[in-house]
Amino acid sequence: MMYFGACYYPEHWTPKQAKDHIPLMKQARINVVRMGEFAWNRFEPEQGRYRFEWMDAVIQALHKEGISSVLCTPTCIPPQWAVQKHPGMLQRDAEGRVRNPGSRCHCCKNAPEYQMLADRIVDQMGRHYAGMPGVIGWQTDNEFGCHRTTRCYCDHCQSAFRDWLLEKYKDTDSINQAWGAAFWGFEFQQWNEISLPRHMPAGPNPSHWLDFARFSSDTQVKFQRAQYELLKQLCPNHFVTHNLMGGFPEIDYWKLAEYTDFPSWDNYPESGEDPFLPAYQHEITRSFRGRFWVMEQKSGPTGDANTGLMGEQPEPGDIRRWTWQAVANGADGVCYFRWRACLSGAEQYWHGILDHDGVARRRYREVAETGAELAKLGDALAGTVVQTPVAILRNYAMLWSAERQPGAPGFHYDNHCYEIYRAVKRSGHGCDFVDIASDLGKYAVVFAPCACLVDKALADRLDAFAQAGGTVVLTPQSGARTPANTMWAYPRPGAFVAMAGLTVEEVRPYHHGQTEAIAPAGGSSPVPAAAVENWVEVLTCREAQPVAQFAGGRLKGACAATRNVRGKGTVYYLGVYLPPAAMETFAAAVLPPFPVADIPPDVEITRRTGKQGSLLFVINHGRQPQTVVLPKACPELLSGGTPGPEIKLEGNQVLVFKL
Amino acid sequence: MMYFGACYYPEHWTPKQAKDHIPLMKQARINVVRMGEFAWNRFEPEQGRYRFEWMDAVIQALHKEGISSVLCTPTCIPPQWAVQKHPGMLQRDAEGRVRNPGSRCHCCKNAPEYQMLADRIVDQMGRHYAGMPGVIGWQTDNEFGCHRTTRCYCDHCQSAFRDWLLEKYKDTDSINQAWGAAFWGFEFQQWNEISLPRHMPAGPNPSHWLDFARFSSDTQVKFQRAQYELLKQLCPNHFVTHNLMGGFPEIDYWKLAEYTDFPSWDNYPESGEDPFLPAYQHEITRSFRGRFWVMEQKSGPTGDANTGLMGEQPEPGDIRRWTWQAVANGADGVCYFRWRACLSGAEQYWHGILDHDGVARRRYREVAETGAELAKLGDALAGTVVQTPVAILRNYAMLWSAERQPGAPGFHYDNHCYEIYRAVKRSGHGCDFVDIASDLGKYAVVFAPCACLVDKALADRLDAFAQAGGTVVLTPQSGARTPANTMWAYPRPGAFVAMAGLTVEEVRPYHHGQTEAIAPAGGSSPVPAAAVENWVEVLTCREAQPVAQFAGGRLKGACAATRNVRGKGTVYYLGVYLPPAAMETFAAAVLPPFPVADIPPDVEITRRTGKQGSLLFVINHGRQPQTVVLPKACPELLSGGTPGPEIKLEGNQVLVFKL
Amino acid sequence: MMYFGACYYPEHWTPKQAKDHIPLMKQARINVVRMGEFAWNRFEPEQGRYRFEWMDAVIQALHKEGISSVLCTPTCIPPQWAVQKHPGMLQRDAEGRVRNPGSRCHCCKNAPEYQMLADRIVDQMGRHYAGMPGVIGWQTDNEFGCHRTTRCYCDHCQSAFRDWLLEKYKDTDSINQAWGAAFWGFEFQQWNEISLPRHMPAGPNPSHWLDFARFSSDTQVKFQRAQYELLKQLCPNHFVTHNLMGGFPEIDYWKLAEYTDFPSWDNYPESGEDPFLPAYQHEITRSFRGRFWVMEQKSGPTGDANTGLMGEQPEPGDIRRWTWQAVANGADGVCYFRWRACLSGAEQYWHGILDHDGVARRRYREVAETGAELAKLGDALAGTVVQTPVAILRNYAMLWSAERQPGAPGFHYDNHCYEIYRAVKRSGHGCDFVDIASDLGKYAVVFAPCACLVDKALADRLDAFAQAGGTVVLTPQSGARTPANTMWAYPRPGAFVAMAGLTVEEVRPYHHGQTEAIAPAGGSSPVPAAAVENWVEVLTCREAQPVAQFAGGRLKGACAATRNVRGKGTVYYLGVYLPPAAMETFAAAVLPPFPVADIPPDVEITRRTGKQGSLLFVINHGRQPQTVVLPKACPELLSGGTPGPEIKLEGNQVLVFKL
Repeated sequence: MMYFGACYYPEHWTPKQAKDHIPLMKQARINVVRMGEFAWNRFEPEQGRYRFEWMDAVIQALHKEGISSVLCTPTCIPPQWAVQKHPGMLQRDAEGRVRNPGSRCHCCKNAPEYQMLADRIVDQMGRHYAGMPGVIGWQTDNEFGCHRTTRCYCDHCQSAFRDWLLEKYKDTDSINQAWGAAFWGFEFQQWNEISLPRHMPAGPNPSHWLDFARFSSDTQVKFQRAQYELLKQLCPNHFVTHNLMGGFPEIDYWKLAEYTDFPSWDNYPESGEDPFLPAYQHEITRSFRGRFWVMEQKSGPTGDANTGLMGEQPEPGDIRRWTWQAVANGADGVCYFRWRACLSGAEQYWHGILDHDGVARRRYREVAETGAELAKLGDALAGTVVQTPVAILRNYAMLWSAERQPGAPGFHYDNHCYEIYRAVKRSGHGCDFVDIASDLGKYAVVFAPCACLVDKALADRLDAFAQAGGTVVLTPQSGARTPANTMWAYPRPGAFVAMAGLTVEEVRPYHHGQTEAIAPAGGSSPVPAAAVENWVEVLTCREAQPVAQFAGGRLKGACAATRNVRGKGTVYYLGVYLPPAAMETFAAAVLPPFPVADIPPDVEITRRTGKQGSLLFVINHGRQPQTVVLPKACPELLSGGTPGPEIKLEGNQVLVFKL
Repeated sequence: MMYFGACYYPEHWTPKQAKDHIPLMKQARINVVRMGEFAWNRFEPEQGRYRFEWMDAVIQALHKEGISSVLCTPTCIPPQWAVQKHPGMLQRDAEGRVRNPGSRCHCCKNAPEYQMLADRIVDQMGRHYAGMPGVIGWQTDNEFGCHRTTRCYCDHCQSAFRDWLLEKYKDTDSINQAWGAAFWGFEFQQWNEISLPRHMPAGPNPSHWLDFARFSSDTQVKFQRAQYELLKQLCPNHFVTHNLMGGFPEIDYWKLAEYTDFPSWDNYPESGEDPFLPAYQHEITRSFRGRFWVMEQKSGPTGDANTGLMGEQPEPGDIRRWTWQAVANGADGVCYFRWRACLSGAEQYWHGILDHDGVARRRYREVAETGAELAKLGDALAGTVVQTPVAILRNYAMLWSAERQPGAPGFHYDNHCYEIYRAVKRSGHGCDFVDIASDLGKYAVVFAPCACLVDKALADRLDAFAQAGGTVVLTPQSGARTPANTMWAYPRPGAFVAMAGLTVEEVRPYHHGQTEAIAPAGGSSPVPAAAVENWVEVLTCREAQPVAQFAGGRLKGACAATRNVRGKGTVYYLGVYLPPAAMETFAAAVLPPFPVADIPPDVEITRRTGKQGSLLFVINHGRQPQTVVLPKACPELLSGGTPGPEIKLEGNQVLVFKL
Repeated sequence: MMYFGACYYPEHWTPKQAKDHIPLMKQARINVVRMGEFAWNRFEPEQGRYRFEWMDAVIQALHKEGISSVLCTPTCIPPQWAVQKHPGMLQRDAEGRVRNPGSRCHCCKNAPEYQMLADRIVDQMGRHYAGMPGVIGWQTDNEFGCHRTTRCYCDHCQSAFRDWLLEKYKDTDSINQAWGAAFWGFEFQQWNEISLPRHMPAGPNPSHWLDFARFSSDTQVKFQRAQYELLKQLCPNHFVTHNLMGGFPEIDYWKLAEYTDFPSWDNYPESGEDPFLPAYQHEITRSFRGRFWVMEQKSGPTGDANTGLMGEQPEPGDIRRWTWQAVANGADGVCYFRWRACLSGAEQYWHGILDHDGVARRRYREVAETGAELAKLGDALAGTVVQTPVAILRNYAMLWSAERQPGAPGFHYDNHCYEIYRAVKRSGHGCDFVDIASDLGKYAVVFAPCACLVDKALADRLDAFAQAGGTVVLTPQSGARTPANTMWAYPRPGAFVAMAGLTVEEVRPYHHGQTEAIAPAGGSSPVPAAAVENWVEVLTCREAQPVAQFAGGRLKGACAATRNVRGKGTVYYLGVYLPPAAMETFAAAVLPPFPVADIPPDVEITRRTGKQGSLLFVINHGRQPQTVVLPKACPELLSGGTPGPEIKLEGNQVLVFKL
């Protein structure tokens, strides 16, 4: 069953205002609402006095009309009495400034008083709603870490960080060793000497910083775990999820998603933006556990709490297109944010399906149309999932390492992952994302972009994958660091020297816009001629063969990229950052074939496969008509026709073929 | 009598240096000086020991030469002993940082100890100077709120804010209701839970914020009121003013000006800048009480205390031109800042009529020439005032609402008011500014730019004005909010739906430079064809008729602006921000006729009218010659001739005609 | 003897890793290493327990191979136990934020506990190493003030500032007088009322600020002096230096260098940057005491601790060229930073002669080549020094005054000094730098750029130099201020009116990109026609004659620059900032002749002179070939030939001629 819903805030509306909401929902085929994430003050207006009856009535009224409820634990914003009583639970930033109440996310998850109060409200809600008809699952809290609050620098966190390190390293000698703390005299003798990387004259030790980033992420995971385990115990029939923020960089979502039944995420695309950005985040979120929901899908202009600006209107067809894109990439549920624009508060410009006045206008009509389509395709979708032979290694510690020390000017780990993702998607293939310990068995090709933090285990795992017949693609800056974020004492690419069959003679960051020309080398090179910039590596081949070389200037003739045959497989090492077109060419050359060729730039094609075969989703994200040639004429499920094999797509058009 | 003066700091000069000052003043026809606003440490060098004799001597020496004195209460900078003794009276910013002593404006007006010390020095000065010959009036303090100090976030302010809210709302339920505090769980049970909108992870509740902005403004007003009432009691024969800062956005000058006999303001134009900017601020300041002074008129390069940069020299003729512009817009007094550049301190680059060396150079000569001219026209000016049939609604709460949540990218309430002002001024008409409760009876046209905070009373007042034959002009974003800064739950333009005769189908903020073409609609439209940007509204007419429609793209044919006949009058609703030329065309079409047509862009024409008829001021603010055609040849008072009707104006020329 | 060395961190390497280091050093002709500046935690792992044996072993192993050691006092980073025990020794910034541990430079030099701990470790090290073979000298601490830590705003500093002022002014009346504290009521009655210029609403009193800048600098000097005097007493046979940071603006290096035997500095040029920038800093550093070392010479990509970016690779030949440039400008020692890239820490991207893997690559080979060349020329260099007839007055208080109040938009005192330096260098002459009390006897020409803080003594000294036959060049903004940073009460150029023979009628800052044309005036003017901007002064000649006048606009014909015959000499006053080409023309006209004419822009020529005559260093800093014509054919010491007089230089080429 496809869940189709909205985020709803009954606490914002008078009974009179709310009266018309449920019929309108039903008419739009909405079958689920998410509620309650900011209503702690309503659930527990005084410490220990709980009031759920107002929410119970809403759940029952919805249930009566066939609409299920996903409830949220409201731990993101404690009631005012809690902050007043326990001011020590407010976060502090790196400069020592308090993160005051008045918006959200201001509490420190390492503050014992906050943990205790949070536990208690979750426990009460779990007990109360475990058996209530209509309730099907839980969202914990809301968007952990939003507004850059993952990292808190308060004294609670300083204590907890010491405990975390003690658990990890057992003694200070091991920390000093791991962090290379001899540099800048940063060695510890006593646990209580360890501090947080607060505001300091120069940048912190990157190993110290990386462990702090890990600890801060783990703090969120621990908080999630406590709620997850409590809710699963109290409500064994409910699912538990958390709404992630797609590419949000501060939390290791691999770890967090372990304590969900499936993750969900909040998708706010812009009308004109690169359409593969939402796909990237859909596939990332799907990869954590194999399935996902979009818990908040943009359905109107945003309204930023900080700038006070109202965002742009989705153009006609956009909401429908975004919804189908989510489904095409594997979503099992899509909830629009929000049902109706709130009349007050920092997000009062944040629109929903309905405007402030509750009048059903074009956005409502488009939502209703989409709901009808989804209902129509429900059976065909049932049991289908996205499958792909391509994986990208995307690891949060590597992201954090590059965040602190990007090395190359302008380098951003996640942008680099996305560049590779986009090149793969242009070929038609979807991507799974994998972490350092994931099983690679089902893939033909694994990209490991800037895999900077590498130990022998990871190098061995990738090598074994290659030796067994797979293709591994490594990119610049790979292999040079230990998992502790220190540099290996042997030549780059460090841990990858053996499998890549080369060493790096010189790394060359370019700060002044310099470019180098590269040209294919050897026979049948997958690398085209290109101009590269930012950072180049001059390679010395051992077992590897050049596939690209520098084509001019002082470096002329030096090796820029290699291929190494390794057992039954192949390892590519790219010593330069290929620009997008060259990366597409490279990807096309090393990937398995895809049933549709020459896909136009704005068109996305994905497959969901089940026991009854595959559905092919063809989406034109652009405003201009496009043409796609299918392998053969196929039944199209939305129209009921069987067009093709050449298909004309109007702007914003969505087609779903039975393959 | 026209007051013509300078700001003077006797405490900066040795007797030897000061010796030549008074004769030079007299020679320049200076008849008033302002003194004392930063001299508290000299007036009260130890707590309770007062020393006024040094100032008395200066006042007497000036008086002997026919120069009057305006004294200032020196509360802006308490003596060092006060800060040392009461460090708790220092302000704190939103991030908790102390605003330390060493410059000025560092004290919190809600700190009881500061209030007490301030009361005492004002009381002492009032008693001492009540009967002293030569003293004619008072300026309280100096430029309240300068350097962004209106808003203090200290604990004194937190307490005072709670009291202010208690006074306004009576109970927390009413606050929760008014603020829509259900959003983000911001509801209060107890008074002491209410906090200031200090540094927080995301933006504050806009209703919370607006009340804080109101409270911060009221804090200044309360401080002014205390001094005003004390001085009026002690010195019934003296006037009391305060030097405002023109377009300064943080204080409700409507309220502040109530506790002055007339307001004054500090005018620092740039030589090359838009010449209507000073006019805008002259007319704003005049509108508060019907008369005003320029208390600080730029007379030399500025010297910014923060950047340490020296500003540009006024070009020859600028000081005279600025002085006449003030008079032309209704000023009854102009004081130059400052008599002589100070040899020390953060503003030591801030020049005056004289340079540091006290030598009379070209700026002094120009001041003296201007003084002679003003003396010559004194009788003609006596009893004349500026009158106009046009008003612009300019309200501080609306400004603050838009400051927090501008909605449209780049939108700034006061810039928008200025755009309309400038369009009106180009027609020749001056403008009065009005607040939400002002009497509109004497106007023909009222513009209500972005009148965003609207209750029934305001809508009714504007409607009644229209029904009685007036013309009302509404612009985008109008009417949508309650005075508490929450959104109305019915269609935009909210409270104005009935009088405007339309609803807004969709608001469209544009963030990426999009433009829409509009074209006139219906017969005799005042709206010309134009390209609009930033924010457009798609209108649905009820009683209203379109006067402009979208001319291309997806919106083609939709309504963009309307005219609604309302009783004997007319209500225009502009759903787009007209660019300057289009706004000038629109204004010309809806305004009453003006005696002079086709006024060149750099020329400003104003009238002062009295019992003996009108004076027409014609000022060429540009450097190039211009031509203006008067209704007939008129006597010109500066030259004594009777030129015209075609008048040639040299660059920087000022002419004053008897109409 | 020329010292040729590297900065080495034995604490970063395992014995196994370190094994190969010393043979590689020896092979590269390295004869000195600098060690220990961040190893306090190793020297004193617990309070009062000292461990030097690990360092002793390194020193001895080096000494055995003929490599001397310069040891550092490690006071820059105290051990963790010290910070834990004495958190009050952490610095605070102007906003009250703690500068936390985790990087370096976080301790306040006015904290008594830090002073005591620092004294003790220096004392212990001095005693231990006084007689150890191989140790030849000391570097104190490391780069005082790095990361903008010269100025601390903690309470220790507030107390110390009061003491410093008491020592300087004796009583508060004198401070009030000197600071012109009557402005903005800043007068003090009691010592404890005096505060630091912490975060405040507007800019501080500039005299207050200048004394704070002086005090902050003196704090560093006092700290240096304590270590210097202690080390000289304990180790009379060792030299003591400190590694300055070239153009670093926060510390008065004139004063600091007094407490060194010679200063050294840290040179990190960029491959493509203006090649005279390092020369500027070499000559500044040399001027303090007549000799200097480069203690850290870039030998690989940098690795910024804050941004985490890796810098660019030095191109082939750059390291050698930079080394010879140092020698050519008078260096007696050059140490590369660093021997080998550290595997960990905030600077782990900061490369050295060797990469992380310790493999000797092209940078090592270039260093070894340079070492061999220096060894070859050792005898010829012995006893030679740089001599020049040109001096530039460069004073730190003037720099600080202009930092706070630049006056002209974009004006920066040190950039202005550099513009003049560059113009002089283009003629071939080197420059000595002098301070306000320096002996000027040996110079023909003294430039005094923006000599803004002037008392009678300085004016008299420059006047006497001119009267005795010298040439003095003054530039805009000169003479206007007292040494206390207040303005003189008489016409600009204040104290210089008599010697310059003129007054300034008007100063004109330009904020909007205006330019003025100037043209030569009088006969034989050294000033060419030029377009000037930012700030111009209109001059009124008394005894002086115009040498340039404004050539258009309102100022046409007014005087812009003058020459005044003064006794046997000449005083030029430039009332405008000459652009680079015009400044070169001017400099060429007023400087003595140089043996080589028409030096191409990228070529630097310097002389070192000794008892056996002069060496002429000719360095082509560019990548393109250049031609230089010597007075005659001369022996070239690196090649052994005698080319010329016309010399072709390849890109990056270095030649050393025996004149």
